[in-house]
Amino acid sequence: MSKGVTPQSENYAKWYTDVVQKAELADYSPVKGCMVIRPYGYALWENIQAELDKMFKETGHVNAYFPMLIPEGFLKKEAEHIEGFAPELAIVTHAGGKKLEEPLVIRPTSETIIWAMYKKWINSYRDLPLLINQWANIVRWEMRTRMFLRTTEFLWQEGHTAHANAEEAMEESLKMVHVYQNFAEQYMAMPVIVGKKTENEKFAGAIDTFTIEAMMGDKRALQSGTSHYLGQNFAKAFDVTFQNESNEKEYVYASSWGVSTRLIGALIMTHGDDKGLILPPRIAPYQVVIVPIYRDNEAKSTVMTYIETITNELKSQGVRFHLDTREALSPGYKFNDWEMKGVPLRLEIGLRDVEKGNVVVFRRDNAEKIIETKDAFCASITRLLETIQKSMFENRKAFREENISNISNYDELKIATEFGGFARAFWAGTDEEEKQIQKETKVTIRCIPLEQSGKSGTCFYTGKQTTKQVVLAKAY
Amino acid sequence: MSKGVTPQSENYAKWYTDVVQKAELADYSPVKGCMVIRPYGYALWENIQAELDKMFKETGHVNAYFPMLIPEGFLKKEAEHIEGFAPELAIVTHAGGKKLEEPLVIRPTSETIIWAMYKKWINSYRDLPLLINQWANIVRWEMRTRMFLRTTEFLWQEGHTAHANAEEAMEESLKMVHVYQNFAEQYMAMPVIVGKKTENEKFAGAIDTFTIEAMMGDKRALQSGTSHYLGQNFAKAFDVTFQNESNEKEYVYASSWGVSTRLIGALIMTHGDDKGLILPPRIAPYQVVIVPIYRDNEAKSTVMTYIETITNELKSQGVRFHLDTREALSPGYKFNDWEMKGVPLRLEIGLRDVEKGNVVVFRRDNAEKIIETKDAFCASITRLLETIQKSMFENRKAFREENISNISNYDELKIATEFGGFARAFWAGTDEEEKQIQKETKVTIRCIPLEQSGKSGTCFYTGKQTTKQVVLAKAY
Repeated sequence: MSKGVTPQSENYAKWYTDVVQKAELADYSPVKGCMVIRPYGYALWENIQAELDKMFKETGHVNAYFPMLIPEGFLKKEAEHIEGFAPELAIVTHAGGKKLEEPLVIRPTSETIIWAMYKKWINSYRDLPLLINQWANIVRWEMRTRMFLRTTEFLWQEGHTAHANAEEAMEESLKMVHVYQNFAEQYMAMPVIVGKKTENEKFAGAIDTFTIEAMMGDKRALQSGTSHYLGQNFAKAFDVTFQNESNEKEYVYASSWGVSTRLIGALIMTHGDDKGLILPPRIAPYQVVIVPIYRDNEAKSTVMTYIETITNELKSQGVRFHLDTREALSPGYKFNDWEMKGVPLRLEIGLRDVEKGNVVVFRRDNAEKIIETKDAFCASITRLLETIQKSMFENRKAFREENISNISNYDELKIATEFGGFARAFWAGTDEEEKQIQKETKVTIRCIPLEQSGKSGTCFYTGKQTTKQVVLAKAY
Repeated sequence: MSKGVTPQSENYAKWYTDVVQKAELADYSPVKGCMVIRPYGYALWENIQAELDKMFKETGHVNAYFPMLIPEGFLKKEAEHIEGFAPELAIVTHAGGKKLEEPLVIRPTSETIIWAMYKKWINSYRDLPLLINQWANIVRWEMRTRMFLRTTEFLWQEGHTAHANAEEAMEESLKMVHVYQNFAEQYMAMPVIVGKKTENEKFAGAIDTFTIEAMMGDKRALQSGTSHYLGQNFAKAFDVTFQNESNEKEYVYASSWGVSTRLIGALIMTHGDDKGLILPPRIAPYQVVIVPIYRDNEAKSTVMTYIETITNELKSQGVRFHLDTREALSPGYKFNDWEMKGVPLRLEIGLRDVEKGNVVVFRRDNAEKIIETKDAFCASITRLLETIQKSMFENRKAFREENISNISNYDELKIATEFGGFARAFWAGTDEEEKQIQKETKVTIRCIPLEQSGKSGTCFYTGKQTTKQVVLAKAY
């Protein structure tokens, strides 16, 4: 993959798909709207999964697996839910050589099949809370697809929890959006705004949807994870009641929450540059790549022996590294290749370095190249990786702050968001007015941040007084 | 789950489904032939996955993800492949509110979509070998289903490798069947016979299929994992060629291999008894369950403080344990519940044990109950778990050896296998004769074991001389 990518400034969308392919994260498949996640992209997903799964388990959740095929009638039980998902369904009409009596839909999300099961499992308050998560594939027939961001089939996790009262269910949905925030910021080095969606933008079937919204490299917003407070909507649709502590029958309260392979798209667009990916150390498949440099077999043997003392040290410290021993390729080609793939640190090691007991260390995030002794490098490697992790986050946070404007009228909104950029504003409009703004400017209310100033101000659109502040942007 | 299960001797099939449900491994779903894998069953699958995934990576494989929906035409490209799978396909005809131009099938296995991609990725011998594995869900429309053993949708892994020559591809498929053997024997404590399938029984599209065959508690056979040498069949079907080292174009050689959630069925039937599951320590979700026994709050406080010193010790040793603090249930109920769930060790701890510094230890596999000091227990716990692991394997190996008969004529075959049991015999029959035996007796040739005596003998069916020995049995 020695050839470069389209510069961001020339065509950001093209830059994105170039990076996806040249970094070998994913490839187009012969199936419309579906991608193949290649080993390097999947390794990234495995690291994301591993960390999230740990967080879910630490917060008391267990994993399970529910059928992918759902009777069509199930989706119709919750009116808003079917209205939201009907246009995107893929439908199995034939199986085992016969026409099915009732068509089956491939899950676009699993609330309906899961609540059909919860009816069997929940009888008493003693069965609650039920805190289940599922890692699964999902199909939503999208018209316009883009790799990782919006594909017909994608991978995700979906938490589905059941509770004995509204407060607990609400607490759960808030807890999980903060788990997502924590993961995005601490592991992906991606600052996010945590907020509530407006009525227009919430999940089909939810009472409230919470979201994490991130700013991409082109200053547009990407919804990166959502958590829903479902109230008793699905419990009523599937008749799931429980005997409460006062021995009364009551409908169960629910939350659901999910993140998907879209996070990989978020990662690419948060950190990437014209040389390709830049991966945060905590989830990078390789944290360090080592490129040996030599001209003949004697030099090779010397260099490789020296490298072995380094890799032994990295192994013992649990650093994920890769030694690039490909024979047919030049060091320069390898440098570009691993920059494209976003490996946080590159070690270049030749005869001269061996003689001096040195290593040449290249940082992908800020392109700094330093020469230090092997011993100094080995002693500080985990600290250096953490420094990069933090620095990437701070860098992106500063970038976001530079590109959020406080706006007070409609014209200012247009100016602040026209070429990307977030706008912060007071908002007292209706759902209809919100839709009108979107129609005219393609800008949407990304969320009502959970952190509000508490101050009162003038709605930028209606001129009404309000304390509600929102964040607006063009979004993916 | 205090009520027991149907005894094995009364109705083995009923015993099996009772255990699946009462141990809360899985539940029937409203979707025909599909099950829900419940958290306890899924935890088992996660442990199986984790160990296998480690083994795959140690043997040089990487994971990736390919689309679940495959154009119908792809399956038709390999003639035997479509013939084998056509009756079991689930077909998506409508999506996004429209009829599709070409129907899509839900993958019954992924050779076809993967080889369509390999055509894009493989050009030169330098691109080989390609060693990719996928964890995924699969749909095969089965007429008669049984939880874990045969369900319409199931979870599995499928390895798909591409090689520059036949020897390497064959070596790979043999290597992987031995990885499966290793996993079955070392982790599941399930002895298996490794062998080759006959022409009648091999995978649709393979040249050779290798299998691991295990003996269940009712002495019937269960095919527990398969590895296929595919030769150039799929490369030819999808026109996948490479430039070899002599600069000639050649078709690529292939293997594929897989195990599924069927392994959980194997586990249940290999070790289970009339009290429920018996799980081998290496993959048990909990290796130790602790049941505190007390009558009042004061006793409870004393007992729980004592238990904490034990759980701290277990934690530091990395032992997976569960402390059963459910208030509404009696110790006796809990004992039965955890025996049903097959937890290898149970600790019962009451006031008297605290006073003496003791623990009561119950072994699920052999129902031994011993009392020892807390310190002695903590000092020997990991050794004890390994002892159980080995003992379970030896026990099942002895059971299998008791139930394999060497037979020399057709009548002996019928007697040896009528109520379960394996038969070892010389075989020189044709495919047709093999089918005739199956028709008359329901017995199939499970495999031609890789380990052969090398001796010559008389075919039990045809009377011909041969050196080929086979293992026959009724199978799931």
